[in-house]
Amino acid sequence: MTHHVSSMLETYPKDLGDIDQQKLAECIEACFECAQTCTACADACLAEDMVAQLSTCIRKNLDCADICATTGRVLSRQTGNNAEVTRVVLEACRAACKACGDECAQHAGEHEHCRVCAEACRRCEAACADLISSLG
Amino acid sequence: MTHHVSSMLETYPKDLGDIDQQKLAECIEACFECAQTCTACADACLAEDMVAQLSTCIRKNLDCADICATTGRVLSRQTGNNAEVTRVVLEACRAACKACGDECAQHAGEHEHCRVCAEACRRCEAACADLISSLG
Amino acid sequence: MTHHVSSMLETYPKDLGDIDQQKLAECIEACFECAQTCTACADACLAEDMVAQLSTCIRKNLDCADICATTGRVLSRQTGNNAEVTRVVLEACRAACKACGDECAQHAGEHEHCRVCAEACRRCEAACADLISSLG
Amino acid sequence: MTHHVSSMLETYPKDLGDIDQQKLAECIEACFECAQTCTACADACLAEDMVAQLSTCIRKNLDCADICATTGRVLSRQTGNNAEVTRVVLEACRAACKACGDECAQHAGEHEHCRVCAEACRRCEAACADLISSLG
Repeated sequence: MTHHVSSMLETYPKDLGDIDQQKLAECIEACFECAQTCTACADACLAEDMVAQLSTCIRKNLDCADICATTGRVLSRQTGNNAEVTRVVLEACRAACKACGDECAQHAGEHEHCRVCAEACRRCEAACADLISSLG
Repeated sequence: MTHHVSSMLETYPKDLGDIDQQKLAECIEACFECAQTCTACADACLAEDMVAQLSTCIRKNLDCADICATTGRVLSRQTGNNAEVTRVVLEACRAACKACGDECAQHAGEHEHCRVCAEACRRCEAACADLISSLG
Repeated sequence: MTHHVSSMLETYPKDLGDIDQQKLAECIEACFECAQTCTACADACLAEDMVAQLSTCIRKNLDCADICATTGRVLSRQTGNNAEVTRVVLEACRAACKACGDECAQHAGEHEHCRVCAEACRRCEAACADLISSLG
Repeated sequence: MTHHVSSMLETYPKDLGDIDQQKLAECIEACFECAQTCTACADACLAEDMVAQLSTCIRKNLDCADICATTGRVLSRQTGNNAEVTRVVLEACRAACKACGDECAQHAGEHEHCRVCAEACRRCEAACADLISSLG
């Protein structure tokens, strides 16, 4: 998807300001990927026989999916940017990805979907941290 | 809607912990209401002849709608609560509501939809601040 | 919330066409309410000791929450309306509400949250059907 | 993203039934990509000097983004599948992608973002049609 995210950034008709476009594109991509992966992980957990032991994991998956989806949308918009809102949304996304990644990592040995999901969460958490740093 | 939000909190099968249920219900309700109002305000701005002067307002409406919708969902879940994620999501929602409320308030005299929307944003901003305070 | 939904419809700056505004407002309200209730019901099911027997119910709750949220947003927009898209989205919402309402109704005797949720689904299903009929 | 979508389908712990997994993965990927692209196209349209002539395009972008995001989520879930809901959601997504793709195609010569967006809509429309056909 990164190709398409970058294409849309390149076609934006006004100046994008001094944001790091590469980090922005990577973060948008990571948010959408993590939203999809967490949605699928919640569903896969729900199909496990031991679902009763995975309720906290499902909860964190659902929160992380929603927060990543919203963060991906906010970052996809450039018109009338508000640095403060961008920053707090990125902080929320980083925290949700850390919480979900930590939880999924605990089940990574038993559940392959949690292993894949923990990786997506780590990647998105890092992408948010990188973008926050680049915002100065 | 508050009646239904409260009904669902009352039927939650486990202990809700020491959260202030009244403030929680009010904040959930304010988030869903603000998400709807901001979606409608973005659309009403789009229908104005002077839409070119409202692009920043539309952007803030769209961000606020997404962030409120996600916050309303996160707050509607009680299983495996994570205080840190709840807090940063509420902070993001408060910031988005403040940004959108400030913007809409500037057009409240000219556009009735911005006046109604500014009120919804103020109410949601205050509900988030109240709930954050009650989290201790 | 209906009061606020109606307020925003009344402040729309252009002609709303010949849509039944009362039915439209009721359907928007029902969609947002059902989205909140289904999100909470999925979470309450997740907290039940017998969660393993509620996985289908949780799945239907999650789908219904997403579809109602999207339908509520589409209906909240009046600019450049597309009758065909409005109709198919309403059909999808009606089907999701019927599926979730039927499932929750089966657990209504055991789980109070499913009883409340089944009612919200029935109300939203009926509101979608009413609005579809009024579209002619 | 397709790699990750497929990874999650492969780690699903139960039988996926006789759905065409390749077409399913492609449709999920197309939905998330189209949701991102339409969100960015609405924002790029908002930044154009001639935004007043693009209000219908923005409306279709916003609807298409919401419907694609919801469809991508519904398709990412396999537990307790409901063929009827899957089908009507895919029909709604196909219609929204057609409406948005047709609109963006009219501005493709003037606005590069509309050209890229029209392609994403066409791809998603085709992926939905393919998946509907494969459902039998």
